[in-house]
Amino acid sequence: MPKLDLTAIPSTNRTTYPEPYAAGMTKRSFRRLGAAGGLTDFGISHVTVEPGGMSSQRHWHSDVDEFLVMLEGEAVLVEEGGETMLRPGDCAAFPKGAANGHHIVNRSAEPCVFLAFGRSEGDCHYPDADLHWDSANNCYTRKDGTPYAAGVS
Amino acid sequence: MPKLDLTAIPSTNRTTYPEPYAAGMTKRSFRRLGAAGGLTDFGISHVTVEPGGMSSQRHWHSDVDEFLVMLEGEAVLVEEGGETMLRPGDCAAFPKGAANGHHIVNRSAEPCVFLAFGRSEGDCHYPDADLHWDSANNCYTRKDGTPYAAGVS
Repeated sequence: MPKLDLTAIPSTNRTTYPEPYAAGMTKRSFRRLGAAGGLTDFGISHVTVEPGGMSSQRHWHSDVDEFLVMLEGEAVLVEEGGETMLRPGDCAAFPKGAANGHHIVNRSAEPCVFLAFGRSEGDCHYPDADLHWDSANNCYTRKDGTPYAAGVS
Repeated sequence: MPKLDLTAIPSTNRTTYPEPYAAGMTKRSFRRLGAAGGLTDFGISHVTVEPGGMSSQRHWHSDVDEFLVMLEGEAVLVEEGGETMLRPGDCAAFPKGAANGHHIVNRSAEPCVFLAFGRSEGDCHYPDADLHWDSANNCYTRKDGTPYAAGVS
């Protein structure tokens, strides 16, 4: 059935970030809607961020586009050039290769919910962290290229 | 700036369907958000359907996935197996190659707004119409393969 039953799709707050970056992710959870709906062209994450939480470390992708639409609540889009409030129906686009690290921070008193679209391919850059996703070696490294220990989940 | 100013993105109700199928499309309009945001991995249409209108002819794609999320109002998802009401936050996924023709019909008294995601590639099938999108020849044909006259817009 094309309409997705969101309550039947498992929600998780797992992260593959190494410490100390994983510790900041406990207030966001997500459901993988694309996989649940049988889609393979692009991924869709249904993300909830509790008050005080953030969607991810601030990041940008070398090789894949990202798009998000806010569905419930409100949160701040933090990017290189400043901050923008996002409310239900607001959309944001992040073209591949644009060196504008971004994430969503919930400073409100209520959870926010948004959808994020994109594929998980290519390198990912984290301007605020000693962190880099090295897609050729399928691992997180420090900025000097030293791999973090694998297997954090 | 990643947040999109929807009011600055042109809205159109154009259709490339040949008659008599074009005539049914006057009550839906759309904005192309992906192009406006500089994205190329997938397309994003911000679609408004007025009361009594429909999103498209009922269709399914051979080669590309589709996904939609309702943002405002309510409308009926009509598919091969029946009908499902969609309200804000509801999501639906249409895997490529699944022969389940679908469209959105607004039977309410208010406009509905949704986002539709996917690429414009491959053949498209229309179970209720004498219509087929022939991607190899880049044209609409009747079901017997006869091309419609080109240039309807």
